[in-house]
Amino acid sequence: MVMGEPRREEYKIQSFDAETQQLLKTALKDPGAVDLDKVANVIVDHSLQDCVFSKEAGRMCYAIIQAESKQAGQSVFRRGLLNRLQQEYQAREQLRARSLQGWVCYVTFICNVFDYLRVRPQQPPWMADSLPPKAQAGLLPTATQPGALVLFLPQVNNMPMMALVNPVYDCLFRLAQPDSLSKEEEVDCLVLQLHRVGEQLEKMNGQRMDELFVLIRDGFLLPTGLSSLAQLLLLEIIEFRAAGWKTTPAAQKYYYSEVSD
Amino acid sequence: MVMGEPRREEYKIQSFDAETQQLLKTALKDPGAVDLDKVANVIVDHSLQDCVFSKEAGRMCYAIIQAESKQAGQSVFRRGLLNRLQQEYQAREQLRARSLQGWVCYVTFICNVFDYLRVRPQQPPWMADSLPPKAQAGLLPTATQPGALVLFLPQVNNMPMMALVNPVYDCLFRLAQPDSLSKEEEVDCLVLQLHRVGEQLEKMNGQRMDELFVLIRDGFLLPTGLSSLAQLLLLEIIEFRAAGWKTTPAAQKYYYSEVSD
Repeated sequence: MVMGEPRREEYKIQSFDAETQQLLKTALKDPGAVDLDKVANVIVDHSLQDCVFSKEAGRMCYAIIQAESKQAGQSVFRRGLLNRLQQEYQAREQLRARSLQGWVCYVTFICNVFDYLRVRPQQPPWMADSLPPKAQAGLLPTATQPGALVLFLPQVNNMPMMALVNPVYDCLFRLAQPDSLSKEEEVDCLVLQLHRVGEQLEKMNGQRMDELFVLIRDGFLLPTGLSSLAQLLLLEIIEFRAAGWKTTPAAQKYYYSEVSD
Repeated sequence: MVMGEPRREEYKIQSFDAETQQLLKTALKDPGAVDLDKVANVIVDHSLQDCVFSKEAGRMCYAIIQAESKQAGQSVFRRGLLNRLQQEYQAREQLRARSLQGWVCYVTFICNVFDYLRVRPQQPPWMADSLPPKAQAGLLPTATQPGALVLFLPQVNNMPMMALVNPVYDCLFRLAQPDSLSKEEEVDCLVLQLHRVGEQLEKMNGQRMDELFVLIRDGFLLPTGLSSLAQLLLLEIIEFRAAGWKTTPAAQKYYYSEVSD
């Protein structure tokens, strides 16, 4: 998605009630005027219940982060967002046991946040893969707060993407376990996320991607009761990655044009 | 294989009886002194019975073709060879019904001949993908004989590789039918040939390669009673092709370094 394009969908804001819509609109225009921790919680809560919203919620989060940074040079919202993501991450097995859909929405959301928080044109290029010299020397403001995001954000303000790499991988590994591969919702989620952020994840940590695909191939080859659709989805993602994270014309035709009987 | 390397294995000539070894040695050194039709038949007969030999027989055929061409500017041996290949090709279903091993050896042999008869450094570059202007204008000697190789060699002397493309594809399509995919010898043969000549074949006719991989994926996804080993082999070749006919480091590790349980 090209940044700066018209806000066609108003960040999917219409799926919230009127009062919350107002809160979110203000957060986007005048972030200093609202409780950004509350905003973060509202967005995460909604994401866990609405998988359609969770697929695009990273965009809204990114816009609020940018607005706050521009207005006040702060990252209250991002910290709140990542804090909440971390809480859910730590309780992910319970979440999955309680609500498979909630779990799938969570993975969708964290991957989408990872996708949006990675380098964007407006951000300085050093955010891509290393800290800027000033930050390394401890000269940038860090704004850490007690108890904030030890797991996710050792370098709080600078490396959101790096910090999310392992949690995102952990979620995908969970989806590639046999008991998840036997559930089409989870297989569907796994391959959607890999289509979206797989290439970027592999760049950040190629070894974990190799390990993830060992699980996926094993799931495919061992008799674990995959459905036909799950097999098709997994075979497609195996080819997709083998082709360098793209769909070859032949695969396009096979997986997206033909009806298999 | 680099042409011009020492003839370490003497073209595997030692698997023949003493008299035939002499015949083959003469064919290589002084092709005009022997019955080259007989030589072609001896080599094909032996290939159909000895799968180890058939994997490398193309090399010997190529050397005899080169020797004859150099000595006499003729192609009696090549014509005899391709004639015989065509006979077996036309009777391939009977061959398969009679002897699965003979059939597998045949496919191995024809693919190996295809592999060796494709462009080599000594051959002029126009043999790669088009006829030279002189041949197109009918100015090159063609040496066609009555009844020779209508199916295989419409352009007898110039395009052996082009002529073999479709027969080779037909054999591989046969190996990708459900009844063949349930036999490990045939799956093994299929993936070996694709490793060896798949890339070249795709360059000659990409659409047929797409069709072949439709069969292979279908074999995988439809319940056709593939063995675990067959599944592993087919998944590997699917990834191999998707990666542009090469093994990625991750695939190398998965398929060639680990023991699957």
